[in-house]
Amino acid sequence: MDNIVRVVVDAMGGDNAPAAPIKGAVEAVNESKDVCVYLAGQQDVIIGELAKYTYPADQIKVVHASEVIETAEPPVKAIRGKKDSSIVVGMNMLRHGEADAFVSAGSTGAVLVGGQVIVGRIKGVERPPLAPLIPTAKGMSLLIDCGANVDARPSHLVQFAKMGSIYMEHIMGVKNPRVAIVNNGAEEEKGNALVKETFPLLKACKDINFVGSVEARDIPAGYADVIVCEAFVGNVILKLYEGVGSVLIHKIKEGLMSSARGKIGGLLIKPALKETMKSFDASEYGGAPLLGLKGLVVKSHGSSDAKEIKNSVLQCIDFSKQDINGKIKENIQKPDEE
Amino acid sequence: MDNIVRVVVDAMGGDNAPAAPIKGAVEAVNESKDVCVYLAGQQDVIIGELAKYTYPADQIKVVHASEVIETAEPPVKAIRGKKDSSIVVGMNMLRHGEADAFVSAGSTGAVLVGGQVIVGRIKGVERPPLAPLIPTAKGMSLLIDCGANVDARPSHLVQFAKMGSIYMEHIMGVKNPRVAIVNNGAEEEKGNALVKETFPLLKACKDINFVGSVEARDIPAGYADVIVCEAFVGNVILKLYEGVGSVLIHKIKEGLMSSARGKIGGLLIKPALKETMKSFDASEYGGAPLLGLKGLVVKSHGSSDAKEIKNSVLQCIDFSKQDINGKIKENIQKPDEE
Repeated sequence: MDNIVRVVVDAMGGDNAPAAPIKGAVEAVNESKDVCVYLAGQQDVIIGELAKYTYPADQIKVVHASEVIETAEPPVKAIRGKKDSSIVVGMNMLRHGEADAFVSAGSTGAVLVGGQVIVGRIKGVERPPLAPLIPTAKGMSLLIDCGANVDARPSHLVQFAKMGSIYMEHIMGVKNPRVAIVNNGAEEEKGNALVKETFPLLKACKDINFVGSVEARDIPAGYADVIVCEAFVGNVILKLYEGVGSVLIHKIKEGLMSSARGKIGGLLIKPALKETMKSFDASEYGGAPLLGLKGLVVKSHGSSDAKEIKNSVLQCIDFSKQDINGKIKENIQKPDEE
Repeated sequence: MDNIVRVVVDAMGGDNAPAAPIKGAVEAVNESKDVCVYLAGQQDVIIGELAKYTYPADQIKVVHASEVIETAEPPVKAIRGKKDSSIVVGMNMLRHGEADAFVSAGSTGAVLVGGQVIVGRIKGVERPPLAPLIPTAKGMSLLIDCGANVDARPSHLVQFAKMGSIYMEHIMGVKNPRVAIVNNGAEEEKGNALVKETFPLLKACKDINFVGSVEARDIPAGYADVIVCEAFVGNVILKLYEGVGSVLIHKIKEGLMSSARGKIGGLLIKPALKETMKSFDASEYGGAPLLGLKGLVVKSHGSSDAKEIKNSVLQCIDFSKQDINGKIKENIQKPDEE
């Protein structure tokens, strides 16, 4: 049974809970023999939902947790106060080695705080980054960090670069991933204080394929595989991606509806447009890992549907089998320069 | 002749110079009696170009400048070294009161350095921000600051908010413009050190209509009229806007070409798509002002065509007639709280 990866799924987290996480868990175990899902949450609710599906019974277990952390709750208070919430119960299973990974579409803040406080950092990791995949013209890039802790130090960014490289290479299959730091220009003298201090450290780092600065304009084109930045900037990038995309699509649709010709054309292009939008949709790839913790914590979008939860669970199998944490440990604890 | 606004246009600046700036200048004087354009640059080149057009001769003058600052040159060195460049010559005219405004599509760095070093700041202005207009679902917002000086202080951001409000109200005609600060969440406790320090100062500021934090996701929707941030973040927002838009449009076109149905639909939607893209194109509104200087400096896109230069020149008329600098001076030198 050594090959079975044990994944706790937060059955109560996300806009579509409990239906979506439970359906996603069922789809995951129906797709892979290598995973056992623990559904954490209110037992009667979960059992009621599960009754709708057919699945290998030995691959899904229910772990009762009476409380639910709401998205609006202050994260630290929620993690401290709600000891019997699905997030706290699930993360404690990671902490005690009873599970390998934890997937939640619930409160980002609570997941980040819980990850640090309950699961704990790998020795040597200074700050665990939240690293979502973002769509590009060429595929996907890892945007690291988009977490809650802003104002990072240069040493944090160097660790982000290393952890991001390991993830892209071993989970996403990108050989020798190109690492770039977000900057306000391509020239050597550009950058804020943090970037200027970090740049030479990344350049000196032997374990990564550092390609220099990336201007925000070139991120969507797929200029690099690992996009390093501190969390405030990462948050701006991630959310602006979403915002520009949705306004642009809305404007195009609106524009088409303004003429008969546009309306007919719009009907004809609908399938192609849908396909294109799908290829530019991050949810196809599962959630964002919170890297550098003693177990794997994956944060799915709040709006996750069953498919995204399923993909997040399947992602945990690769993460565990590839021993990403072993690789992170080894790499972080090694000196950068010889 | 008091009503004539004197605008220097850098005839040598931008990817399409000298043709585009010269054509833009001609179009501007053909559209408005209230402006006199000084074309700064190599005299013989300018005279040769001008010969192609018909325009009121007393509204265009040529100011010879033998040198050209290239985009790739280090800005400080270029401004110091090339005393007879179109940028230095033009800005000196502002400094000596021989012109009211300066428009260039040339090196952003050189324009920013020249603005500070040659034209000089209005007394009390700590840092002159570069403030482009960005398209939104509702129209345009002013993104302030996108300049070259990063790592701003809270007092800088407060001045940006005030100058941006004045610009949006008196040039763009937005009554009581909504001012927001870019943040990584809407909650009160969110923000990096700079934002946390700036937030209460903006809240206490009586001259502006501060509406709180704006997440990057909500910028394209048009959540606020004046989007305040320090220049590193402003640069990321401005360039990502461009990058996401162009990749998305490219992907949509590519998607349409992959099927016969898509191709036909694509032909039908072409005019509507073009119209939509135009409404989401910042160049329709002219260049970005560098606010807080003793004269007006406007930076047009490097890729400016004649139309954008024309719009930049016409923008200078409003700026001068509305006495924006008088309003900035009065507002900056006034205490924030009573």
